[in-house]
Amino acid sequence: MTKPQTLKGFRDFLPKEMTVRNYVKNTLTEIFETFGFQPLETPALEYASVLKGKYSNETDDKLGYFFKDNGDREIGLRYDLTVPASKILAIYSNEIQLPFKRYQIQPVWRAENTQKGRYREFIQCDIDIFGTSSPIADAEIIALMYAGIQKLKIKNAIIKINSRSVLFEILSKSDVKNNQESVLQSLDKLDKIGQDRVKNELISKDIPKVQIDNLFKYIKEAQPDEFLKQVLDKLKAFNIPESAYIFDPTLVRGCDYYTGTIFEISVTEPKIGAIGGGGRYDNLIANLGGPNTPAVGFSFGFERVVDVIQELNLLPESTQSKTKILVANFGEETETNILNLVSNLRDQNIASTVYPENEKLGKQIKYATSLNIPYLAIIGTDEAKNNQITLKNLTTTEQKSVNFKELIKILQ
Amino acid sequence: MTKPQTLKGFRDFLPKEMTVRNYVKNTLTEIFETFGFQPLETPALEYASVLKGKYSNETDDKLGYFFKDNGDREIGLRYDLTVPASKILAIYSNEIQLPFKRYQIQPVWRAENTQKGRYREFIQCDIDIFGTSSPIADAEIIALMYAGIQKLKIKNAIIKINSRSVLFEILSKSDVKNNQESVLQSLDKLDKIGQDRVKNELISKDIPKVQIDNLFKYIKEAQPDEFLKQVLDKLKAFNIPESAYIFDPTLVRGCDYYTGTIFEISVTEPKIGAIGGGGRYDNLIANLGGPNTPAVGFSFGFERVVDVIQELNLLPESTQSKTKILVANFGEETETNILNLVSNLRDQNIASTVYPENEKLGKQIKYATSLNIPYLAIIGTDEAKNNQITLKNLTTTEQKSVNFKELIKILQ
Repeated sequence: MTKPQTLKGFRDFLPKEMTVRNYVKNTLTEIFETFGFQPLETPALEYASVLKGKYSNETDDKLGYFFKDNGDREIGLRYDLTVPASKILAIYSNEIQLPFKRYQIQPVWRAENTQKGRYREFIQCDIDIFGTSSPIADAEIIALMYAGIQKLKIKNAIIKINSRSVLFEILSKSDVKNNQESVLQSLDKLDKIGQDRVKNELISKDIPKVQIDNLFKYIKEAQPDEFLKQVLDKLKAFNIPESAYIFDPTLVRGCDYYTGTIFEISVTEPKIGAIGGGGRYDNLIANLGGPNTPAVGFSFGFERVVDVIQELNLLPESTQSKTKILVANFGEETETNILNLVSNLRDQNIASTVYPENEKLGKQIKYATSLNIPYLAIIGTDEAKNNQITLKNLTTTEQKSVNFKELIKILQ
Repeated sequence: MTKPQTLKGFRDFLPKEMTVRNYVKNTLTEIFETFGFQPLETPALEYASVLKGKYSNETDDKLGYFFKDNGDREIGLRYDLTVPASKILAIYSNEIQLPFKRYQIQPVWRAENTQKGRYREFIQCDIDIFGTSSPIADAEIIALMYAGIQKLKIKNAIIKINSRSVLFEILSKSDVKNNQESVLQSLDKLDKIGQDRVKNELISKDIPKVQIDNLFKYIKEAQPDEFLKQVLDKLKAFNIPESAYIFDPTLVRGCDYYTGTIFEISVTEPKIGAIGGGGRYDNLIANLGGPNTPAVGFSFGFERVVDVIQELNLLPESTQSKTKILVANFGEETETNILNLVSNLRDQNIASTVYPENEKLGKQIKYATSLNIPYLAIIGTDEAKNNQITLKNLTTTEQKSVNFKELIKILQ
């Protein structure tokens, strides 16, 4: 038999990676629930007609995994979480109370070019408030973004806020009437390639020089519009410190389906740009085939957040190994004692494991350290007789004799 | 645009169903981690060659979702979690320390006949200990099964334990030499169709009457073999009460890949039979293409456990709504107060939500009750002036005036 292989662009997650991924997932879930968002899950497979032709950018259809099932139905794997949400709003309009605050954390599949370091299977992590045009909703999403940064202890992060209206006001004042989306796409690169290269790009797009100069003049002078002012006011009422966010009239956020507020979390270290973005999209749900529903939402770039946590070593120490202690095995004579001990530890909700075989202690210790388990419990015949446990701290190699109560205190 | 549809055999999970599913998933995850199991995840898509022809029962291949990707690779969706685990053991043998205790909770896909009430996408929830032949491992899995039943508060559940050796000993003593697996498949139905119909089935399979009589005689006399005795001894050391499990020599557990201990959790109410099963399978990983690895494991029937929790109303009240309070909205005058309040509540980790629009109070209350939110906070102009909050218990309709500290106390 040939050795099995994992498909290119797909990843196996061994326990060490899973630990980081679960930490991010659990932390974000907790925040979502604290903010009153409710869980939603939809199937991996949908009718191709539910998925296809939904966005103006047709590459989405090419990137999808589509095929025929045994019943000759055209089906496909979900490639985002917004199309399924619009399906949900269309099908279950009688069961869903608006405003509907939902979170959805599920993998999506895209036949991406893997050479760009992109994955063909990755987690999306979306929160959205469907069914209200209130600026409170926009502010609440931004407040949640802030809570996410805080809880994950990501420093050097800033929330950039803008509005599509501000952008179109700048275009209008600058007299840019043609190729507006194309001009915005160039502006979107300001952060990455700088003002000079953006100007050159605009020149190559045949934008008159006077318009380009005006663009940069009016960007400098730009102010939040009336709606965005309300959103910013509400951020203060939500106790979000002003240092946490910035009005950035150059923020574009690619997608042309946004209709109002747009925002992203930008990090300067590591240099990976945005770790999530979103905004208000009051027409998209209807365009996707759902009911006419105003909406505002945010998508955490789950895979990028995981990268940040890993690169900056932000995984809390207590999370690095869920298992707190390995109970060593010295064979039959004290076996009942060790199984008893591990059972009692688990009853106290202390995650523990027992080595199932009577191996050399060195091997058992190596096993524990390879799993980042911080403690080892030893019950030899002496310990068994005296109802004691020898506790070894595997980080400091210190060891001492304790009874069960003392052990619990140390491990809790 | 035609109304979108969900594929037959696939399910959308709205928040109320997700709440139960997340409760089961989180409860089991906590138990797995307390028992020292580590998380593993593998891709939804694999090379068809990794998935196909792995089990003697070839229907598995027919039930799989297989197709060609854009790069003309034959690929398929995972249909179980054991084949991927064997892949992991084959590829990452240098990174994985044995014994490897892993849990894996992920959806799998099977093109099942949906008329049987089966789903084409469902969660599997597997725990396995790879790399040890010690009976401690078998006992630990059973101890975990018991912890699962306890934690989920499933009454009328019993753990049935047997061993394939016991079954083959019975067959041997009864002189059944041919069609042994087929005879076992009939015996497996004893619980469902009773002794008489099983006997008739065996007659129709041309098993001589004397062998059939002997079968039932030796079943009555059957005793655990040496290894199973050790497993049962260790259950006592693990403090598992004897009332929780039973040696059942008629337990077969369908799959012919088990090599020793077999077990299941059987519930009598609701009448859905087993909510999970497993056993020792020392040859399967090698047969699946992995390295030669003894293994013992258990699979919680996740979807069935969810059914039990729903049918017997076992979802703890505190879990029914994660959101504890809706802060009502009375418009601009007190808007800063309500946004302040909800922000302060969230800082105390109290899940809360604010109604984003100034609607009639009746509508806001209806919204809260439809989401099972137990409390409503009201800050009108009077409350704002006096720094008080009117707290309404939406279950009892009682209401009283409290300050923030008192509010926190009630909600925590």
